[in-house]
Parts: sequence; structure tokens; C-alpha cells
Amino acid sequence: MSHRRAADSQPSEALKTTKVTGPLGIIAGRGSLPVMIANAARADNVPVHIVGIQGEADSEIERFPHTWIKWGEVGKVFSALDKSGCKDLVIIGGVTRPHIKNVRIDFGAVKALPFLLSLRKGGDDRILSRIVRFFEQNGYRVHGAGDVLPELLVPEGTLTRLSPSADDKADMALAFKVVRALGQFDIGQAAVIASGYVLALEAAEGTDAMLERCAEIKRRGRSHGTGPGVLVKAPKPGQEERVDMPTIGPETMLKAAEAGLSGVAVAAQRVLIADYNRTLEIANERKLFIYGAPQEETDA
Amino acid sequence: MSHRRAADSQPSEALKTTKVTGPLGIIAGRGSLPVMIANAARADNVPVHIVGIQGEADSEIERFPHTWIKWGEVGKVFSALDKSGCKDLVIIGGVTRPHIKNVRIDFGAVKALPFLLSLRKGGDDRILSRIVRFFEQNGYRVHGAGDVLPELLVPEGTLTRLSPSADDKADMALAFKVVRALGQFDIGQAAVIASGYVLALEAAEGTDAMLERCAEIKRRGRSHGTGPGVLVKAPKPGQEERVDMPTIGPETMLKAAEAGLSGVAVAAQRVLIADYNRTLEIANERKLFIYGAPQEETDA
Repeated sequence: MSHRRAADSQPSEALKTTKVTGPLGIIAGRGSLPVMIANAARADNVPVHIVGIQGEADSEIERFPHTWIKWGEVGKVFSALDKSGCKDLVIIGGVTRPHIKNVRIDFGAVKALPFLLSLRKGGDDRILSRIVRFFEQNGYRVHGAGDVLPELLVPEGTLTRLSPSADDKADMALAFKVVRALGQFDIGQAAVIASGYVLALEAAEGTDAMLERCAEIKRRGRSHGTGPGVLVKAPKPGQEERVDMPTIGPETMLKAAEAGLSGVAVAAQRVLIADYNRTLEIANERKLFIYGAPQEETDA
Repeated sequence: MSHRRAADSQPSEALKTTKVTGPLGIIAGRGSLPVMIANAARADNVPVHIVGIQGEADSEIERFPHTWIKWGEVGKVFSALDKSGCKDLVIIGGVTRPHIKNVRIDFGAVKALPFLLSLRKGGDDRILSRIVRFFEQNGYRVHGAGDVLPELLVPEGTLTRLSPSADDKADMALAFKVVRALGQFDIGQAAVIASGYVLALEAAEGTDAMLERCAEIKRRGRSHGTGPGVLVKAPKPGQEERVDMPTIGPETMLKAAEAGLSGVAVAAQRVLIADYNRTLEIANERKLFIYGAPQEETDA
């Protein structure tokens, strides 16, 4: 193991307060990352306020000062952040494009209507960039999760007991090329390649659904003659990394194992790992490798 | 409608015998195309012999002189073609990469072992190119289905009552770019784009499975705010078009309709249409367009 943190130790949850100068606002989507960041802030005596998106954020956020909002309640977001004095923001956790019937337009949203309408078109990255710009124009500082809590970033090298084989490395190299080529179209951040054969590419369905498809393709025998295969995740070139970093976690490992993959490779320092210890534990149990590829390998 | 054949007329099934100088061997995978070509040959007094791959080819091939083979029975293919005097070949219809346990190695296969082993790695196109080369090295002439029966090729222009809208045209243009970018990695031939948002990319799962995924993505509301979307199919650059032309047919239209798409655009003259009349009938019933894009639009 060549990374900076042993798999069985707790990550040191020190918040990089050099960047965060006051109370931290966390706009929370799905998953455990919002609460991990809130815990780190609390450990560092930085006050937090979590704005949870209904239907997305975990109820765990209620352990912290919080406000629940519906999609479209722009005014409520601003007032919650203002009341708690948050000028520093982290926007974190997956969200699903809301159905129009679940969008509630409050007064703040009416004022922000040109912005909201601009979100209706384009790929994820353009939308997220517009959201970041919108908050910045309203006087907030938007930080990446990895900026405030670097322990969330996948470090360089092999994290698991198993390392990628030479065949895995060849598949990884091809997959990083494919993901980079797709990035110019603001698409996906993931591909599965086995023995040079591209089993699956991620677009709107998400990584878990793509891995389920790989398992199905293998069951149907459509990948005959190929090796086990590798999942690769990397940010798109020019991706708004502050709010849309690709993420791996325990579920990724379970699905990768079900798809019979040999491991998961990601762009080191540019992909988040949710629940580091549990993710590594599952990877080791299921005999998967996790590899943080240095830039010379992802951009080759 | 700007194409050369009215939707409600039967296609003229004249075989382009200028290219085929003797009996025609048809190596048949899935679908109706092998029998359509055999019918055309028969109508043109060209003798045929169909070599059907077990588990793939339709039992309809038994209406013609035929031989069933298992994967790997290379010797049996050659002897069937030799006995029927076929030096001209069409290899047509989808196949699934066989599971190793379904591969039967006969004496011809043993002699062809280096060739067979070369098939274990790489994307579809490299494999199909090797198969074509293998037959050519053994003295056969391999023709594309569109070479012997040009009526199978999607003509230029709108084939249906409905035409693509300006939004559809913008999505089509982006999708042709995406498919071309993927082509360099020997991947897929299809993408679904809605309002500039890439819903799905095809890799090993096939077009029908990709369209089912789009329907699911829409049900889950992950495509909110986008228009209906367009399916685009085009050959990969450098694709072995003689044996691996992208194909659309009735099933494509049914699945496209279930995914709520507005239509299907393909590279004109470079994509096959299986069962032209039925495909158009379904497209018109379901209010889909079918559009054959000229080269200046696919390569823009």
C-alpha cells in the first residue's frame, strides 16, 4: 500500500479552514458525504448549516443545524444561508434532475427565473457550472469537497491488497482515453473495458446502473473471451470539479464485484471516495483492486 | 417524402448480380435479413446456400438450401460452401459473442486456430475485420448486404410522415459527433440525445437494450427538462461495413417509441433497414420520424 493513510485507521477529519473563513453552508444531495463534511467542520469548531434537498439528502443531516428545501426554493436557500451567516459553501451529493411537478417556485426563484430557465438545456456539467456561477454572483464562495476535506480524495497508487495486472493496466489506459474523448461532449465519467472491449459507457444512467448492465451483459454471454474488466472513473476535462466530482464508495465496490470486474481505477486526487474504510473493506473482501492513477496515466 | 421508394410499395428485390458471379453463400446470424437476401437471390435466379449459426439464425432459413453450424465449426462452413459452389459470400445478421462452452472445434477450426485465437481480444470491428480477411485469404469474395441488395440501405431524407424538428436536428448533429468520437475506440454505433443532454451511449449491450434504458431513465425522471430526444446510428469510421453495418428495424421503432423519442436518424446509405415496410408502418403509427442523414450532416 502506497498511500498516505492506512486502510484500518480513521481518516483525520481536519477541515482545511485556510479556505473556509466563516460558518460553512453545505447544500446536500444524496449520500454520506454531506454529513462527513459537517462532522469534519464540527471537529474543527467551524459552525455549519446544512441545506438538504428533499427527496435527495439523507435524514442524518438533521443531526446538524439544517433547513429542508424543495427544488426551486431559491429564496429559502438564500435566507437559510444568510440567517446562519454562511458565505462559504460546499455543494455535495448526487441529485436527480427533478420532475417539473416537484419544482416549487418561491419568490427567490421568481427573481432567479432567467437562471433557472438556463438550466433546462445541456449536459450536467454546463448546468452545474451555471449553479456555481449563480451562487458566486450572489456573493458566496463555493468550495470543492476535496478542497475543504482532502481526505475525501482518492490518493495515488494501489489502495487495496490486490494490484492491477498488466492486462488491467492496458484496459485502464484505454478507458481513460475513452472517458477523455467523451468529456468533450459533457458526458459521463465512467467506462468499463475488458480485454480492450468496451463493455459499457456511462451517460445519464449513473455508475451503479452501468455496472448492473455489465453484470447482465456477462450473464447473457456477450462479453465472452474477454478478461474480467476494469471500471474507470475520471472527471471530464473542464468539469466543474467543485460540485461534480466523480465519486466511488461501498456501493461501487459491491456492483463492481457483481459485474465480475477485477478492480476500479480512478484519476487520483480528482475523484472522491465516500466512506473510505468501508469501501476498502469491501474491495479487499471481494478481491477487487482500487487504484488512483497519477495524471501521467490519465492524460496519456 | 424525398426518397426513391414510396413507403407503401414493396421494395424491388433485384439482386445486384454484377457483383455476384456465381452461387451466393449467406452466413446467417439473427434477424430477417439473411432470408430477405436469399429471397432476392432466388427472385434473380441466383442459387443460394445459407449457413445458419445455431442459436442465432432464424429457422426460416430452412426454406432454402442450408447447413446449420455451431460456433467453431470452421471446417463445416468451408465444406458446405464448397459443395454448393459458393465463392461469393454475404455475412449478415447479429451474433452474440459465444460462450466458450458453446464453441465446438472441428478439424477446420484446428487448422484455423491462430485465426480463432486472434478473435479473443479487441472490439467488435477488429474481430469482424479479421473474419472477413480470413474468408478472403481462403479464396472467398465477401460482399456487404447493401452491395448485393441496395434496397436494404436507408436512403437520404425523411422516410416518414413526420420530419425532424429544428431541436431534433441540433440533437442529431451532436449525436453524430459523439458517435464519430466513439468510433475511434471501436465502440458502439448509437447514442440517444435529448436537448443537448446525452441520455445513453451504446457499447456492448446493443441498441434495443440502450433504448430500454432510456425509457427507464425517463420513468425515473432523470431526463427532466429535456425534449423527447433522438436516436442516432452510424457506422464507426473504418468500420468493416461489409459484415457489420448498423441496422434499424421494426423493433428499433417500438423501443424508440417506448422511450418517448421523437425519431431515429441514421447515416444514409450506410445503415441497413430490416423489413422496410413494417419499420415505416410502425414509425408512422407511433409518430416517429426516420431520417437518412447525408454525409455532410454525419461528418460535419
